[in-house]
Formats: sequence, C-alpha cells, structure tokens
Amino acid sequence: MSLWEILLGRRLRSEEQEAQKIGPVLGVPVLGLDALASAAYGPEAALAVLLPLGAAGTGLIAPIAAAILVVLFLLYISYYQTIGAYPGGGGAYTVGSQNLGETAGLLAASALSLDYILNVAVAISAGVGAIVSAVPPLLPHTLPLCLTLLAALTVVNLRGVREAGMLFRVPTYAFVACLGAALAIGLARTLAAGGHPRPVEPPPRLAAATSAASAWLVLRAFSSGCTAMTGVEAVSNGVPIFREPPVRHARRTLTAIVAILGLLLAGIAGLCRAYGIGATPAGQPGYQSVLSQLVAAVAGRGAFYYVAIGSVVSVLALSANTSFADFPRLCRALALDGYLPPEFAHLGRRLVYSTGIVTLAVLAGALLVAFDGITERLIPLFAVGAFLAFTMSQLGMVAHWRRVGGKHAPHALVVNALGATATGLTLVVVAVSKFAAGAWITLLLIPALVVLFRRVRAFNDRLDRLTEDRGPLEIGEPAPPPPIVLVPTRHLDRVERKALRLAMTLSPDVRAVRVRTQDVEPDHLAEHWDELVARPARAAGFTPPTLVEVPSAYREFFGPLLAYIRAIARANPKRHVAVVVPEFVQRRWYHYLVHSHRATLLKHLLLLHGGPQIIIINTPWYLRE
Amino acid sequence: MSLWEILLGRRLRSEEQEAQKIGPVLGVPVLGLDALASAAYGPEAALAVLLPLGAAGTGLIAPIAAAILVVLFLLYISYYQTIGAYPGGGGAYTVGSQNLGETAGLLAASALSLDYILNVAVAISAGVGAIVSAVPPLLPHTLPLCLTLLAALTVVNLRGVREAGMLFRVPTYAFVACLGAALAIGLARTLAAGGHPRPVEPPPRLAAATSAASAWLVLRAFSSGCTAMTGVEAVSNGVPIFREPPVRHARRTLTAIVAILGLLLAGIAGLCRAYGIGATPAGQPGYQSVLSQLVAAVAGRGAFYYVAIGSVVSVLALSANTSFADFPRLCRALALDGYLPPEFAHLGRRLVYSTGIVTLAVLAGALLVAFDGITERLIPLFAVGAFLAFTMSQLGMVAHWRRVGGKHAPHALVVNALGATATGLTLVVVAVSKFAAGAWITLLLIPALVVLFRRVRAFNDRLDRLTEDRGPLEIGEPAPPPPIVLVPTRHLDRVERKALRLAMTLSPDVRAVRVRTQDVEPDHLAEHWDELVARPARAAGFTPPTLVEVPSAYREFFGPLLAYIRAIARANPKRHVAVVVPEFVQRRWYHYLVHSHRATLLKHLLLLHGGPQIIIINTPWYLRE
Repeated sequence: MSLWEILLGRRLRSEEQEAQKIGPVLGVPVLGLDALASAAYGPEAALAVLLPLGAAGTGLIAPIAAAILVVLFLLYISYYQTIGAYPGGGGAYTVGSQNLGETAGLLAASALSLDYILNVAVAISAGVGAIVSAVPPLLPHTLPLCLTLLAALTVVNLRGVREAGMLFRVPTYAFVACLGAALAIGLARTLAAGGHPRPVEPPPRLAAATSAASAWLVLRAFSSGCTAMTGVEAVSNGVPIFREPPVRHARRTLTAIVAILGLLLAGIAGLCRAYGIGATPAGQPGYQSVLSQLVAAVAGRGAFYYVAIGSVVSVLALSANTSFADFPRLCRALALDGYLPPEFAHLGRRLVYSTGIVTLAVLAGALLVAFDGITERLIPLFAVGAFLAFTMSQLGMVAHWRRVGGKHAPHALVVNALGATATGLTLVVVAVSKFAAGAWITLLLIPALVVLFRRVRAFNDRLDRLTEDRGPLEIGEPAPPPPIVLVPTRHLDRVERKALRLAMTLSPDVRAVRVRTQDVEPDHLAEHWDELVARPARAAGFTPPTLVEVPSAYREFFGPLLAYIRAIARANPKRHVAVVVPEFVQRRWYHYLVHSHRATLLKHLLLLHGGPQIIIINTPWYLRE
Repeated sequence: MSLWEILLGRRLRSEEQEAQKIGPVLGVPVLGLDALASAAYGPEAALAVLLPLGAAGTGLIAPIAAAILVVLFLLYISYYQTIGAYPGGGGAYTVGSQNLGETAGLLAASALSLDYILNVAVAISAGVGAIVSAVPPLLPHTLPLCLTLLAALTVVNLRGVREAGMLFRVPTYAFVACLGAALAIGLARTLAAGGHPRPVEPPPRLAAATSAASAWLVLRAFSSGCTAMTGVEAVSNGVPIFREPPVRHARRTLTAIVAILGLLLAGIAGLCRAYGIGATPAGQPGYQSVLSQLVAAVAGRGAFYYVAIGSVVSVLALSANTSFADFPRLCRALALDGYLPPEFAHLGRRLVYSTGIVTLAVLAGALLVAFDGITERLIPLFAVGAFLAFTMSQLGMVAHWRRVGGKHAPHALVVNALGATATGLTLVVVAVSKFAAGAWITLLLIPALVVLFRRVRAFNDRLDRLTEDRGPLEIGEPAPPPPIVLVPTRHLDRVERKALRLAMTLSPDVRAVRVRTQDVEPDHLAEHWDELVARPARAAGFTPPTLVEVPSAYREFFGPLLAYIRAIARANPKRHVAVVVPEFVQRRWYHYLVHSHRATLLKHLLLLHGGPQIIIINTPWYLRE
C-alpha cells in the first residue's frame, strides 16, 4: 500500500472533507480551464468558416463575436441563478430530471457525459499535437505522450480537488496574464494608430474571396464560434467543492471565468479585425493558429511570444481537467438515482469519486488509443452534447421558476427562457451544420446511452424488489437442519483431512465424495475407510462421515461430481448442500502455471450451475501450513 | 456441450481405448509425415550448401546421400531395437532417464519438446508459404491461413489418433505414389539413356563455381542433409497407439517409413546427379525447389507435375502432425514423473492427451503470430534438438544393453553405439555450423527448460511432502468446536437473511458484521436488532446472532472488515473463523458491468490474506430466487 500512498497521498478521513474544499482562486483552474481554453479555439473556429470570404470574412467577425457574447451573457445569468437554486450541484442532469422529468434529465446526462469524455481525448491530443509540432523528434511518440499526460491528470485528480487546483493555477493564470497582456498591448497600439495599427510581424495575407457571404455561412460561423462557450456549465455542476458559503464562492468563480472569457473573446475579435487576421487552412503547410498570428502581430516573435504560446498550449492540454472535475460528480448523481452502479457514488481515499475518475480516464484512453493520439476527427462530435445539455438545463430552470414562483421568478424565468432559445437555436445550427462531419454519431450515441442508463436502473430496481425485506427474520417451521456437507476426496491427504474435520464440526451429515476418474486408481481407501476415518470420528464424538464413490465412464471429474451434487440436492429439496472446496493459495504467479486449477473451476461451476441449495465452503491451504 | 460434440465427436468411454488403436497403414500418416516430408527438404538443404561449388556440387551429392543413408540405417536398426525394449513407448526421455539418469532424460525431453514445437510452426508456415506463392492474392492472409491450418490440425488431433490417421492417409500415400512414380520414370529414362537422360524441361543452369570443395563444406552439406532424418524417432515414442501386438505393428510402421524415406532420398540424389540439378538461391527471383526441378525434368510441367507438387506441399504442411502425435505423449511421461502438472497425464474425452495437444497448439500459434507466419528464421533452431535427442536415446540404449545383458545384447550394443557415434558427430557438426544462425538459441533454451522441469518437480515434491498423511484421521483433543461464523451485513436484505439463517445452522457463534462506510448511514438496524433478528432466532431454538458495528474512518469496506476478521482469528487461535459471502450469480455478461464485485473481491482478499484459520462460505443468490 506504500506505493499508493506515494502516488495518491495519505488517506483522508471523512471529517477532513471541509479542508479539501476550495475558493474562487483555485476554482478557476479546477472548473474553468475548459471554458478559458475555448478562447483559444472558438474565434479560430468561427474564422475558419469565414475563410472562403477572404478579407471580407474578417469584417464579419465583430458582429458574430458580439452575438456570441450575448449568448454567453445569457448563459452566465442563467447559471448564476442555477447555482443559487441548486446549491447541492445543479448540473444539467439534476436540473433537467427534477423539473422536466426522467427522460430530459437522462438526455442531458448522456449528452454531457459524452462531451466530457470527448473533451478529455480532444484536449489532450490537441495539447500534445502542439508540443510535437514544436519538437518534431517527439512526433512518433504522440500516443505514449498522450497516455502519459492522461495518466498524470488522472493521478492528480485522484489526489483530490485541492491538489488539482494548486497544481493548475500556475499555467491558468499565466495564460490569462499573457493573453491579457497581448490584448492590452494590441489595444493600446490600435488606439494609438487610430484603428489601423502596423503589425510587428505581419500576419499571412488572406486569400482572395471564393464565395460571397450568405446567411447560412454566417450562422455556421456563429455556431462554430459558440464552441467557445463549452465548459461554462462546469461551475454550476460543481458547487459542492466550494468552501462555506459555497453558493457565493461558486458565483464568484463563475463570474471570474465568464468575465475573463468574455474579455478574451472580445479582445481577440477586435484585434483580428484591426490587424486583418484570418484563419489559415488547417492541416496545410503554412498553417498558423489565429492566436499565434495575433501575438506575433502585436508583440513580434520574441521571448514573450514563446511564453504566451506555451501557456496557450498548456491550458489547451489541461482543459481536459474540467471533465475530471465534473464527470465523476455527474456519475455520482446518476449512481445515487440507480442509473449507474453504486461504486460511482462512493467517496474514495482522497474524498473524490475515484470510480468516475478512473472510468473517464479509461474511456478517454480508449479513444486516444483507437485514434492513435490524433483525435481531430472527433471535434465535430462534441459541442452538440454541450448545447443539448445547455438547452435542457435552461428549459429545466424555466420549469423550475414556474413551479417555485416568488418575487424574482418572472424575471428569472425570462432570462432562462432567453437562454434556452439562444442555446436551442445554436444546438440546431451546430447539429445541422456538423451533421455529416460526425454530429450524427453523437445524435445516435446520446439515445443509446439513455437506454443504457435505463437498463441499469431497471436491473437495480429488480434487484431491490427481489431482495428487499423489512420484517423480522423468518426462520421457518421446523427450524432448518444443518446442511448435507460433501467433501470431494482423492487420496485423503492433509488438505482433505482438514476439510473433513471442519465438515464434521458443521453438520452431522458429512459425505466424502470420490470421483473414479482413472480405472487404475487403487482401491484401498474404501477398504480402510472405517479404520482411517469413521473410527477416529466416532471416538471424538462426531457422526462419522461416509465415503461415496462416483463412477466416471469418460474420465471426467467435474461432470460426474456435479451430477451427484445435483442428485443429492434434488433428493433433499428442503436442505442446503454444502460442498467443501479446499484450495491451495498460490503465492507466486508461476504457481498458477504449475498447479491444478481444479478448486477454482469447481467453485465457478458450482456457483453458475449449482442452484440455490448449493453452498460452497472454501478452505484455503497455505504452502507454509 | 452440443457444439463440442460436433467439433470433437462424442465422448469415448475408457473401455473404447482398444478400438482407437491403429495398424501400420494408419501408422505411417500419423507418425511418419515428419520423416517423409524430410525427403522434400533434406536433399535441398544439402544441395544449397554445395551451391558455391557450381556443377561440381551435384557430383558430391551421391557420396553425401550415401553417408546419410548409412546413418539412417543405423538409426533404423537402433529404434527397431528400442521399440522391442520399451513397448510402453521408448521416447528419448524414457530411454535416457531410465538408463542414464534424470539429467540425461530431461535434456532429451527439453530438446525434443522444443523440436516438436518448432516443427509445427515451421511445417505449417512452409506449407502455407508454398500455397500463397502459388496463389499470390492469398499472400496478405498468410498468418490467418497458418492459424486456420493450426486450428484444423488441433481439432483433428483432439478427435483422436484414429481420425487423424484416416484423414491424412490420402495426402500421405498420394505423396509417396507421385514421388515414387516420378523417380521410377526418371530412373527408367536414365537407364535407357545410359546415365545421361535428356530432361523434358531442362533445369536452370548451375552457376559457376565460386569456391573449391573443402572437408568443412562437405561436412556442412552432410549435416544439412541430415535434417532428412528428423521424425524417425516418432514411432518408438508412440508404440502404445498401435493395436495388439503393438511392438510388431510399430516395427512394421518404422520399417515402412524408413524404407520409403531411404528410397526417396536415394532416388532424388541419383536423379539430381543424372539430370544435373542443383539448388537455386532461396528467397531470390528464379528460385525453384529441387523437387520442382526434378519432377519437371522427368515429366514436364503437365497435370502430373501439379498433382505431384501439390502432394509435396500438403505433406510439408501436414508434417506438423507428427508433433501432435508425440508431444502430448512426451508431456504425459513428464507429468507422470512430476515434471509437468498432472493435467498432462489425463486422457481427454477422445482418449488423447488433450492438454498436451492444446499446449502444443498454443505455443506453436504464439510462434506463428510472433513471426507473422514466416518462420524461416526458426529453421536453424531445430535439428539440434532432434540430434541431441537421437544421441541421448542411442547412448541410453547402449547403457540398457549393458545392464540387461543376454544373448543379443553385445550385438545390439554395437549397433546402438554406432548409432550414438553417428548421431553425436552429426549433432556436433549441426551445432557448430548453425551456431551463429540460431542454434545458440536452442542451446540456451534446452538447459532453461531442464531447469523449469526440475522446478516443477521440486514444487510437486514439496506439495506431496507437505500434504501426505497415511495414518488415521487425527481430530484433536478436545474435539474442535464449530467455527465462529461472521456474516457481513448492510441492510439485512433477503440475501443477508439467507446467509444468517444458514450461519445459525452451522454454529452457535454467529456475528453479523456491519462496516460503517458512510457516516450518513441510518442507524435503526442496531436499535431494532433484537426484534428483527435475535427474538425470531431464539424462538426457533438457535443461539441468536449478535450485531457488530465496525467503524471505517476512511470510507473503506475491505480494510476494516479484514482487520476485524483477523482480530477475531488472533483472539481465538484454536478456532476456525468462517466468513459467509453471499454472491449474486451473474447470468449475463453485462451484469458484470452493472453489478458490484464486492463478493468476488472479498473472497480473493480472504483467500490471499486471511490466514489458515479462515474459511469462506460462499452462498450463491440467483436473480430468479
């Protein structure tokens, strides 16, 4: 257990929960990395759609950014309200299921959990992708690097929420500071130059327009830019990780995240227009990210450029962490309602939901392995999930206000209704525009997951129905007799003798069962049974065990033994039949190769095919005994 | 079980053993395929070594073939004698260990078993290699084809010796007939042409000599040609598969195999010389096997050519079968002496040693997968094993005759001594000439295997020492009391109630143990214990179980439970502590995903860390209960 302690830290007592909680300073790195990293790819995604418009595209970025900022503001207000209404954690699942019913809640849960898994894979592979393109010799090691980063994130999150926040706050605030500085410098220069600053390093020239602007193109640019908002829901989901008073701390964290994100988005959009920066075709030679062009245009390619781009890359890679903070809480909520196995609701050694963390890591790892560390093709799959969850959550809040009523309710309801409309429209645009590129997969997977959750719940319900009993213990009349105890015997060696002795203390009806697998086996055990076993047993005051010989025409062991056991059970339908299975405990892995697995096999066969009367009494035998 | 019946045939009763046995007609395909297939590659191997001599090489083939035939004849006589001396199966392991001691026997066993495994992989990949070079579109499917062929051989051999013989006799005798016919035609034409026949299709011209003959080159050619003898030992190893009288039938089979092999070798060597056929460089464009050149030269490339080459290819691929006939018998002999787990000595449902067959298939399959179905590089690894086993077996027979004595002994001893000298010399030449190409691996693996066998034996001996007991059952004074029975309890659901009821019938000392993993767990079970459990138990005449609450500061279940169980065991060192582990039997694979694995984990932890006082009582619970 010592290795675990080094890796994961000492176990935390349940009473230490409060000390693990955090405030806004750590809340931003723990819950905000996904949202903040969006600033790096949201504007780029919008500009990429505008690429065919050439220079005219850059002109359109300002109104599109303004529209995005409006939706972001609506989301902010409505999640601000959600935090107050659901201080126990108001994820889309909770809000949806409590206000709109089970199906809506499960739809939101499916959408969100898919999104969280995709986010981990995509963020890690994007971060590692940026690193290997900076250090080309690492290229062949892309997948191992991805998996290492994933493992590191997993371990950090298993160590607890607080540790994750402490570790990630440096890159988070470095990112905010660098990008803020670049935007401030750019803004100052733009103002000084009357709106037309001269770039330190000119961005690549925009290609000539190949098509004219259309409403559909603008809508697609808007919906692509909306990916900048994914991650905003994280805080409302994670309210319980904040220290007292949690609602206030959560709201401050949300405000900080949205304010930073809004400023970054506005600044990036403004400077792109001022400097004439557009997207460059991804995956082609000469590709340069929008942020790289922007920082170079504002401040040139000096040390600052490399520090800033380094912070962007690390935040991209670490944005996977938001999933690690929220996915386990979503799973916990589902497990508490019976839609997932109960392990997901169990607080682990460091007071986090370890099962959810490990599950997320395994699923994201599988995606990374399946796509060999290059998960670009997964990008169209997400966003749909996020906006479906946003919409569900907003609609749920509308229903919530209608139900709750009160002084602020009409006002709050309007805000949430506006939010629902905006995110719902965005959802439609995203789903339609990305349908063929992969969003259809998400639209198939979400209902499949809903079915899975329902199945698990049905199984758990059935189990509860079958096993529940609240009355006093019923023992039966007459009281049940001790079981018939069967002891498979071959040579009457010391292992079997221990089993026989034990059996005699448990029941007066003990039978040693001998399967005659080889015709040549010597027969003297039956002859000497009385003197070897029966007489000493009688002398000690026990009913002596009998010896039963079971023939085996086909040299099988298990078949005839199971048939005999079942026959005994059938002949004594009111009694338990206990089978003693002595087992060598294999202390070394190579013992498994060397030694017979008869005991293990017998246990499994009895469990699977024995029937409800059968009991397996497993007596370990240690080599040192 | 119905699928097994279709695949493997009905189970055979032990009494049907005699009906499964075979005579020489099936003995040749079962045990002779390896030896006969050698005719296809032995001469080619010798000619390949002679390649640098150009046309002069073909002149040397006759004396080399004569030397090989002499060694073959010596081997024949000595194995003929071995069959008589060891009618129970006189493999190199038996002969070596009974006459020269354990180490010699194990050396022979290691050498032979390696050889058998390599033979399967190499024969199958050679056969499939020939097929895919004839049908190039199959080339990308080399590995699947190899594995399919391996699986088919495995199934046929699992169906029994007789079935294998019936199935393989057609290709075996077709091979003998085709090659015999080609040689007869060739011989007739050679005689008619006074020793210089005109080829129907002239073989490729031999390259000019690049070096002169040397004694070392001739020795290497001889040792390469000696691979033609591998497989000759198979009959002596498999005497028990022949029907009454087994010695006579085995000797006839051996005679038939050696006679056919000798004639083929002599004929091929003679015709190669007459037609001026040499090897072509393997793996280079224009490569043509010696047999292909020979058949084309004698009979042209008509229908006969394709039938003959087809039979050669099928015999090459099926020559793996000799390993399937002998490897399981070798393993059985080793298992009977404790050098392998006892399963290897167990006759399976079709009266063959199924464990050995499956083990051989798995190991050969692993080799095929590791080498992607192209096992050429493994060829230098074998032959060393065969000749080491030959030598051990001959030396063993020398010791046998010295010990046994009698009228024929001096004569027989000389034959075996000559055999030992010839095979020993061949072994040295093979090992030295192929050392760098891979034989060193064999020379390392053989002693490693010997060490492994000894380890297994030591483990089995220790187990026997520790568990053996021949006296009457010792029960102890005073007689042991029933165990303390612990029942892990959470909600007192029906599963736990069943466990409690059972526990009360087994012992008057039953304790329900409740681990408090969550601080929030409701407490009413302790309050109501008397009315829920104790009172009904008393009413039924049982000592009422007590409830023990075990705290868990770190929300763990297993740690505190195990600690409590160990404390109970320490406090009652003379008593058994039985833990009742109720377990849901998961009938569908997806139940495994959904349901908690607490029971399985608990059983494993108790087995591994419980200590000798612990007993696990596993009560299955079926969903339909």
